[in-house]
Amino acid sequence: MSSTARSRNRTTGLKVGVLGAGQLGRMMALEGIPLGMQFAFYDTSGTPSAGLGKIYSDPDNSLAPLNDFIADVDVVTYEFEHLPLDLASQVADAKPLYPGVKALRICQNRVLEKQTFDELNIPTAPFRVVDSQADLEQAVSELGLPCVLKSTTEGYDGKGQAVLRDAANIADVWLSLGERQLIAEAFIPFQRELSIIAVRAEDGATATYPLMENIHSEGILRYTLAPAPDCSSETFVRASDYAERLLNHLDYVGVLALELFEVNGALMANEMAPRVHNSGHWTQNGAHTSQFENHLRAISGLPLGDTGAIGVSCMVNLIGREADTAAVLTLADTHLHLYGKSERPGRKVGHINIVASDYAELLKKLKLCLPHVPEHPAFSSSLISLP
Amino acid sequence: MSSTARSRNRTTGLKVGVLGAGQLGRMMALEGIPLGMQFAFYDTSGTPSAGLGKIYSDPDNSLAPLNDFIADVDVVTYEFEHLPLDLASQVADAKPLYPGVKALRICQNRVLEKQTFDELNIPTAPFRVVDSQADLEQAVSELGLPCVLKSTTEGYDGKGQAVLRDAANIADVWLSLGERQLIAEAFIPFQRELSIIAVRAEDGATATYPLMENIHSEGILRYTLAPAPDCSSETFVRASDYAERLLNHLDYVGVLALELFEVNGALMANEMAPRVHNSGHWTQNGAHTSQFENHLRAISGLPLGDTGAIGVSCMVNLIGREADTAAVLTLADTHLHLYGKSERPGRKVGHINIVASDYAELLKKLKLCLPHVPEHPAFSSSLISLP
Repeated sequence: MSSTARSRNRTTGLKVGVLGAGQLGRMMALEGIPLGMQFAFYDTSGTPSAGLGKIYSDPDNSLAPLNDFIADVDVVTYEFEHLPLDLASQVADAKPLYPGVKALRICQNRVLEKQTFDELNIPTAPFRVVDSQADLEQAVSELGLPCVLKSTTEGYDGKGQAVLRDAANIADVWLSLGERQLIAEAFIPFQRELSIIAVRAEDGATATYPLMENIHSEGILRYTLAPAPDCSSETFVRASDYAERLLNHLDYVGVLALELFEVNGALMANEMAPRVHNSGHWTQNGAHTSQFENHLRAISGLPLGDTGAIGVSCMVNLIGREADTAAVLTLADTHLHLYGKSERPGRKVGHINIVASDYAELLKKLKLCLPHVPEHPAFSSSLISLP
Repeated sequence: MSSTARSRNRTTGLKVGVLGAGQLGRMMALEGIPLGMQFAFYDTSGTPSAGLGKIYSDPDNSLAPLNDFIADVDVVTYEFEHLPLDLASQVADAKPLYPGVKALRICQNRVLEKQTFDELNIPTAPFRVVDSQADLEQAVSELGLPCVLKSTTEGYDGKGQAVLRDAANIADVWLSLGERQLIAEAFIPFQRELSIIAVRAEDGATATYPLMENIHSEGILRYTLAPAPDCSSETFVRASDYAERLLNHLDYVGVLALELFEVNGALMANEMAPRVHNSGHWTQNGAHTSQFENHLRAISGLPLGDTGAIGVSCMVNLIGREADTAAVLTLADTHLHLYGKSERPGRKVGHINIVASDYAELLKKLKLCLPHVPEHPAFSSSLISLP
């Protein structure tokens, strides 16, 4: 980071490098540009959508573009956690990388992640490491059925995961998940899925957004309600405490998302993501400071902003197809965020944030909005169900 | 505009061309990108700051880049009104240009502008067209002193303007303003400067933001209060009516700003700008839909958004130097918008929007903010004065 930028508390001209060039980097840039920041993206997908700064394209992983990218920027962050660690270390040797390599190493490996939860006394489902079909048989006998299998180092949106319900299928599942290291977890009969987003500044200050309730369909997040309805302040404080333990333990700088199960009033950590998170998109319109701005504030040494909610919000993901733009734009307090991507089944192409003063009003607004969202799954939350 | 974009009410992939590449184009792009729009800029300044899309640079006015720019975009708008009319017509022959050439011709010529105010029965200061020193002497004898002189076709932020207070200076002023056509206006002893921003959609629908109070220093806007305090609903309705007369008369599409003087309870039109306007920047945080988004909605055939205010707002321009970024970011409901420009005396490098639930709270927040704004002029409004 240039000393000029630091010496006057200025971020004008500060160039943030983002590893990845999808919608998370794009939304980060949309919040950083008004703070005078510039952006550059390193993309290996060949189909970047960020488009708000120079894109260093490297579809062949030749690494020459990576070096140019590193030379061009002042500070580096990322929008997906499945970065090769040697690449992350190479970046961190040259420029500040936030969140750091330590956080990345743990967050991208489900075994280390679960061990960290245990170490910090954060409740989580019992688990076993599985390196062979024999290990899997042993795990099933210890954890019982059903049991959840996940690849240790990859997978998101339900990819690389399976639920094993019948011991007769052990061999098939082992094959179908690619015969690589898995983590087997006891199945948690949870009532709902929650998440919490927290942020830690360079100086160690932390802040936490309200707990959120997430509604998935076919392994993909479809709706987030924030704050999560019917949540006691004890539950919020507990979630917030878990997140802060993780932030401090990992010497973390930036935004961290922690996914939790609510089980008979208790919370159990499911997994975490060392980045801005889909379940936090409501903060763009429903919080005083968005997760994107707070992430940028953290990694550029600025003070954190107010994480409080403005009323209550519902985020609706647009999966596969966009909504009817003109129709959505006529709706009060309903904000459209498109990613500029082409439509494709299962692809996240945008989201809608709806803000209201209370849950009853929120549901009314959601009911007006959903007819314009193609192929939306039924909205069924702890609050109420809508078709 | 591509029929694909239109047929499904989609704006994803719609490419908006902006003539000019400064902060207004930049803030437009920041609001259009979440609607899936893309942007391209045509710049003759050689120092573009927009940076949110391809820049067609043409510092020599060679026009070849203009043709490439036109070919690249679906619809064209502009961020400054001093465009050569033949250039505007060339653009309009190839792609939809909003606001149209008719509005541009009138708004960029003070004589036509004043005649339009007269024609639409919108009160404005008496004026004379001045083509020579003799004309100026005649105008002074008819309008009295002091009298305000402005070049007919150029000038903003007080440039190309003078106040003549002593008939002995007529020859000097005529020389200093460049011996070109001027408009001489009777001096209006106004109590305060107001402005109103209105928008008209392609289908003729209109919407108006609340009246605003503007506080200038050395000819440059420094503060905007919105809604203007101490304004009767009659005054608001009158201003709104004036703006709508103009929009309809000009077959207007997009955002129009109308500057007004308040004189003993009456309103007199000063001038208008066929574009998003500095006095409307508060709408980014203080209105349900910003002027930038509503301009883009209008020019892309989308329905207009709610122009209502959320509480009360104060916009603070950053002139010449940025504020202390870190300090400003610690303040509640205080939003920083920087333009990514280098600092230079008199240059607009950013602004701050402060939002509050009432004027008393707004003044408290403003008082916390101003110490971090270098060289800010005293805040003196109809409401109250701050050092």
